[in-house]
Amino acid sequence: MTIGIDMMGGDYAPLEAVKGVHAYLQTANAPVTLILIGDKTAIDSLLAEHSVPADRILVVHADEVIGMHEHPTKALREKQRSSIAIGFHLLASGKMDAFISAGNTGAMLVGALFSIKALEGVIRPTISTIIPKAGGGTGLLLDVGLNADCKPEQLNQFAIMGSVYARHILGIDTPRVGLINVGEEEGKGNILAQATYPLLKENKHIHFIGNIEGRDLLMDKADVMVCEGFTGNILLKMAESLYDIGQQQSPGNAYFNRFNFEIYGGTPVLGVAKPVIIGHGISGEKAFMNMISLAQLMLEKEVMEKMKTELNANS
Amino acid sequence: MTIGIDMMGGDYAPLEAVKGVHAYLQTANAPVTLILIGDKTAIDSLLAEHSVPADRILVVHADEVIGMHEHPTKALREKQRSSIAIGFHLLASGKMDAFISAGNTGAMLVGALFSIKALEGVIRPTISTIIPKAGGGTGLLLDVGLNADCKPEQLNQFAIMGSVYARHILGIDTPRVGLINVGEEEGKGNILAQATYPLLKENKHIHFIGNIEGRDLLMDKADVMVCEGFTGNILLKMAESLYDIGQQQSPGNAYFNRFNFEIYGGTPVLGVAKPVIIGHGISGEKAFMNMISLAQLMLEKEVMEKMKTELNANS
Repeated sequence: MTIGIDMMGGDYAPLEAVKGVHAYLQTANAPVTLILIGDKTAIDSLLAEHSVPADRILVVHADEVIGMHEHPTKALREKQRSSIAIGFHLLASGKMDAFISAGNTGAMLVGALFSIKALEGVIRPTISTIIPKAGGGTGLLLDVGLNADCKPEQLNQFAIMGSVYARHILGIDTPRVGLINVGEEEGKGNILAQATYPLLKENKHIHFIGNIEGRDLLMDKADVMVCEGFTGNILLKMAESLYDIGQQQSPGNAYFNRFNFEIYGGTPVLGVAKPVIIGHGISGEKAFMNMISLAQLMLEKEVMEKMKTELNANS
Repeated sequence: MTIGIDMMGGDYAPLEAVKGVHAYLQTANAPVTLILIGDKTAIDSLLAEHSVPADRILVVHADEVIGMHEHPTKALREKQRSSIAIGFHLLASGKMDAFISAGNTGAMLVGALFSIKALEGVIRPTISTIIPKAGGGTGLLLDVGLNADCKPEQLNQFAIMGSVYARHILGIDTPRVGLINVGEEEGKGNILAQATYPLLKENKHIHFIGNIEGRDLLMDKADVMVCEGFTGNILLKMAESLYDIGQQQSPGNAYFNRFNFEIYGGTPVLGVAKPVIIGHGISGEKAFMNMISLAQLMLEKEVMEKMKTELNANS
């Protein structure tokens, strides 16, 4: 399998990306080829400097970069020779199986939505995030910002895609799906939540446990936590800020340290045909290494295929 | 002024309510009479036991109690002799100026909405909560659950009412109003947030600083943080769970301890003609004392009158 990496994305590019590639190659034994996309001179020089073995690497030159604050659609259209545009071109044409970037998030989303195909039957792709649980486990929260307004059917699909991801990537056999809501009883909530509840309840392809409240999000109540992207994005960003607060208030605290999202690397776009993983701008070596490992795992487990099957079995 | 307290509300009623009344009377010098509503025999016995001075107290007997899990509307209608029903009767008839309960939250909300008048011009009353800021200050988040679906005009009114409250009760001279959203730029967000932004921007009665994101909620960015009650309720409950997590993970940590909502006592219903303060079921002595002090302060500062003035000046 072939995994592409935008070497120009992120605040410390391309150095941290090179270090992440190096760290990945030192631990991974899978038959993976990495395509490194970016400024070839800079990348080659760093690869040599860090003595990265060349046999599993292919460097593809890109002489443009999309900046972190550029307008996504405009930048992707006008900068055809940027690392992100070239990455999606290689992904769409089948020369790569997965694509990773810690660059402009909007451009990565636009690329994922419009350069490659959505999974058959999916209304809209989604992005999710890992939520560390106070008891030690890990939950999945989705959508976290791609779909600020949703229909009930979309939340139902998030539940299906999240369950497949939790089962095959997070290793949770029977993921418990919770609908994020303002009360526990059926019938509670805003119009969207009220209309979503019966869909989840009748969905045979998930293990729905009912509504979960704000106090349950960081607890071991549900494994897959579903909401529209407005609430999800605000929850995610508040959760992320806990790491910074924990660092100031309780340095070294094991739980709050887990809100350091670098250890999870990046967030995959779910509902598209191939793994596209979007990292934080602040991604360092560890984040890049973990994103490559995640792409490898998603390919090995054929997660996208399994989502497609489940989505269509439900429709 | 006369402040009424439901002595039968809360998990530790009436003992903790009596202790809170006692603690309040020991510190407060204001000309306040407290009306204690509930089982007269039990209350009198506790008052004697704790040597609570009788001169500023009036006990009103109620021989029914609305349980924490009863259906609010049904219970209020059927239990006319319950402490909550009697409390709202006394409030509506002008015999009390404010009403406090740590009992059935739904019944308190139904009572506040239907027994007493809404402020002239208000679309729907709202409930807010205090959010401790990592820097040491305090913010106000609203709505936190009364209005799961909102119109832009409602969020605009929340901003006005929240600003008045922050100015006169929290002591913030020029409260910065932030619209909770998924991005900083104008135009970001779901349909509701997009439509609300221009209303807040044009509102001369508030100091609008623009959108705030999830990562800003616990930081010193905005003093009044506005959203619909679905997102607000989930954020509130997640924030409250930080206290429990902090207790387990970093016992004694000053910041996470501030998420112990007992120190704030209760949350007032804003947009109704008189102070109605709803406490947590777990309210203890300190919470009751603080709720009585809050009611006193709201009456002294004539907060409801000031909200009415601001709301109508804006309409």
